[in-house]
Amino acid sequence: MFEVAELGHKIKKRDYDAREPELRTDLLLVQEALKEAKFPVLILVSGVDGAGKGDVINQLNAWFDPRWLRAYAFGPMSDEERERPEYWRFWRALPPKGQIGLYVGSWYSRPIADRVNKVINDAELERDLTRINAFEETLVDDGALIIKFWLHLSESAQRQRMKELEENPATRWRVTALDKKHLKQYKKFRAVAEHTLRNTSTGDAPWIIVEATDKRYRNLTVGQHILERISARLQNQAEGRPPQPHLKPIAAPEVGEQVSVLGNLDMNSALSKDKYKKQLPKYQGKLGELARQARERGVSSIVVLEGWDAAGKGGLIRRIIPALDARSYQIIPIAAPTDEERAHHYLWRFWRHIPRGGNVTIYDRSWYGRVLVERVEGYARQEEWMRAYAEINQFEEMLTEHGIVLLKFWLHITQDEQLRRFQEREKTPFKHYKITEEDYRNREKWDAYEIAVNDMVERTSTEYAPWHLIEANDKNYARVKALRIFSERLGQVLATEK
Amino acid sequence: MFEVAELGHKIKKRDYDAREPELRTDLLLVQEALKEAKFPVLILVSGVDGAGKGDVINQLNAWFDPRWLRAYAFGPMSDEERERPEYWRFWRALPPKGQIGLYVGSWYSRPIADRVNKVINDAELERDLTRINAFEETLVDDGALIIKFWLHLSESAQRQRMKELEENPATRWRVTALDKKHLKQYKKFRAVAEHTLRNTSTGDAPWIIVEATDKRYRNLTVGQHILERISARLQNQAEGRPPQPHLKPIAAPEVGEQVSVLGNLDMNSALSKDKYKKQLPKYQGKLGELARQARERGVSSIVVLEGWDAAGKGGLIRRIIPALDARSYQIIPIAAPTDEERAHHYLWRFWRHIPRGGNVTIYDRSWYGRVLVERVEGYARQEEWMRAYAEINQFEEMLTEHGIVLLKFWLHITQDEQLRRFQEREKTPFKHYKITEEDYRNREKWDAYEIAVNDMVERTSTEYAPWHLIEANDKNYARVKALRIFSERLGQVLATEK
Repeated sequence: MFEVAELGHKIKKRDYDAREPELRTDLLLVQEALKEAKFPVLILVSGVDGAGKGDVINQLNAWFDPRWLRAYAFGPMSDEERERPEYWRFWRALPPKGQIGLYVGSWYSRPIADRVNKVINDAELERDLTRINAFEETLVDDGALIIKFWLHLSESAQRQRMKELEENPATRWRVTALDKKHLKQYKKFRAVAEHTLRNTSTGDAPWIIVEATDKRYRNLTVGQHILERISARLQNQAEGRPPQPHLKPIAAPEVGEQVSVLGNLDMNSALSKDKYKKQLPKYQGKLGELARQARERGVSSIVVLEGWDAAGKGGLIRRIIPALDARSYQIIPIAAPTDEERAHHYLWRFWRHIPRGGNVTIYDRSWYGRVLVERVEGYARQEEWMRAYAEINQFEEMLTEHGIVLLKFWLHITQDEQLRRFQEREKTPFKHYKITEEDYRNREKWDAYEIAVNDMVERTSTEYAPWHLIEANDKNYARVKALRIFSERLGQVLATEK
Repeated sequence: MFEVAELGHKIKKRDYDAREPELRTDLLLVQEALKEAKFPVLILVSGVDGAGKGDVINQLNAWFDPRWLRAYAFGPMSDEERERPEYWRFWRALPPKGQIGLYVGSWYSRPIADRVNKVINDAELERDLTRINAFEETLVDDGALIIKFWLHLSESAQRQRMKELEENPATRWRVTALDKKHLKQYKKFRAVAEHTLRNTSTGDAPWIIVEATDKRYRNLTVGQHILERISARLQNQAEGRPPQPHLKPIAAPEVGEQVSVLGNLDMNSALSKDKYKKQLPKYQGKLGELARQARERGVSSIVVLEGWDAAGKGGLIRRIIPALDARSYQIIPIAAPTDEERAHHYLWRFWRHIPRGGNVTIYDRSWYGRVLVERVEGYARQEEWMRAYAEINQFEEMLTEHGIVLLKFWLHITQDEQLRRFQEREKTPFKHYKITEEDYRNREKWDAYEIAVNDMVERTSTEYAPWHLIEANDKNYARVKALRIFSERLGQVLATEK
């Protein structure tokens, strides 16, 4: 695989000088056009030590206008990063639409290094690569252009390059003990890299292997390729063609009679006032004690609240928080996205609020908006909300694998009960502001929402993150049930983790 | 001082039940109005252990609509926080305009605890309080409404409260060993708190001491006071009165003949091509070696580049970055703010990018825009840019005290040289896009800008963060001079820190 990059490609200074100014102008022009084009570009610069990854980044910083370009690197994890799933740091480092992110080191670095150093075995590497492919697919599906370079040096060229760096006083500092260790591991590294590249070179995000022995050839090849990829994409967009040639066709889900998950709920479930007055403090106390243990042991929780308008999400939140330490939770209500959020993948705004170790985040509505309101109202195209099920499952798998306790509640009420509550709210002064005409309009789409909810539950109720359907016509019953489930689940996880 | 809060204030359940619904409605209404009012509200809930800080936060979460309210707490510092000045975490936790931030624990917590535990002495506490006052003044001047509650319990009430919490199984977990230790330190704590409150109760952000023995009295008092303060502020704003009654009048700076700092530069300074070819790599090598040491030792640098249009900021950046490790620096160009940035104090967007330990941030234009373009173009009102000098000095003092190497360069060219460069750019294909009509318009305001630059240098060239004026008519000279200053300064700091 790497043989093509050991042929001794070179470019003469004279030829380089002749081609470089034009390339630079063209890169600036596509960068200008990109600003309006509303998709982000990710450029990964990976490869062997000494191949000049840093030089390439510096060259790109010099060619492009650095104002719309940002270089990201990933050193040792900070404790804020360690307390979240591994991909949190990558989600934090995504360029907004219209801009370019340069990655020196990326989601590939840890898996490759871990396999070379035998920290993980082949099966674990495979799993990491599957995750990488899913991550890149998620971004590409959302419109991102991912360009991945692998700068290659043969073993002898790498040795030679290191010698040169060491002999020059201006560059000697660049050669570290780690580099020398890596040189000894060349063969192993090459094998792992080849395997990795082969398994992550997808149609949507292929690897480009660049021979890096000659600096001029390397930089010009990288620059030229970036120019071509961005230009082609802009061209496609201008002609109204789909951004990605490889978009998989997705069949529409079968809908209709299987509207059953919600239909099976016993909507007469209720709890007497007396029982409520006993059970509420009981479960709040239990949850309080467990939440304290979780805090001490660094176990985080995420509570997702979804449900019909007026189903009682706010009231439930008010019953949960007395059990929590005021310093340890945040409530994240999902309102209109900010422009920074709009400039990223829809999951980005939720990654932002993943709690630190031991804390609790309560999402008042959530990423499920993609497959509920955005689907029903047509804000998301069908292929967008269809692929969201898989994206969400992958997202939640990362959360739970990291040890986060994830609870998803759907608060269910009947149409009649909703109407009754709307009317009641209109009569109560401090609830009045909660009712708008839109709420009545949404009622007309009840059936469409019900189909969407059923699909959501069917497709995203996983073993690691099941949906809990709460019969919420009776508020007392709903609150106690949700508190009970929360404390039981937290108790289970804490018992397993001991 | 606390005697007023030991009088045994109580509210009967009947009276509470009669007043609470109305208060709740009113709070929701002012919160609605606040959304449009474009100023943030900060509510600090401080006080002795067991006084119910958490309960108050929960109550406020219940009264208000939690979607426009966010609770912030500050536990032990993460390493990402430790690597920045102490106030970085507070700047990260400011509510946007139109929203409310609730603080349980705040910038007061560490100084008070440190003084009680004798980690700091009286003089150091004084210094912390001065910093707190400056911080709050900065926010208030920008329009923030700061409401600070101190929940007070007498020693016997505190002991009683703790006993009650321990006896109830639902709340027992709340009493920690630390709380018991604090109870023993009651007198010392009270003395330090009194001193702190006395010295930070300013006209703009006064402390409200609330007797916390009776839960109903405490919560109602807090709620009522918040309602009054926000309402009064909204009222003031509606009537076009200045937001703060205590705004200090600031005299306009004397301008005119003292335009001298820039006038004294020798604009014929130049460096021959031969010397440049030798000195550039020499200083790049030196800087590279020092930057590596700084990285290893966790010493960060911030480079601020200001200067006339076409003064060569971009070219200088391209000469600095080859000396840096591509994984360790970011270039932050200051373009139009995002809406999240616009919803905060103007310094907020710069705090965002303070580098982690060992890294370098290069600001291509900076917070000095406040006293340059915003002043000259009238985007900032006079009192805004006038007070910015002090705000900036305080900001930079925090950076340098934390051990960050801060370098501020003004690249100076003459008017003739600028014109020559504009015309040259228009002829060069890949520079062409850099020249707009606006650039020519800005030239007409040269004199106004020159006054602003002189004022800026006079008022913000401090011992800890001096301005370096770079004669930049000759690019070679300018680049080598800036690189030399950067490496010399970095060398000094590294030598001192050893």
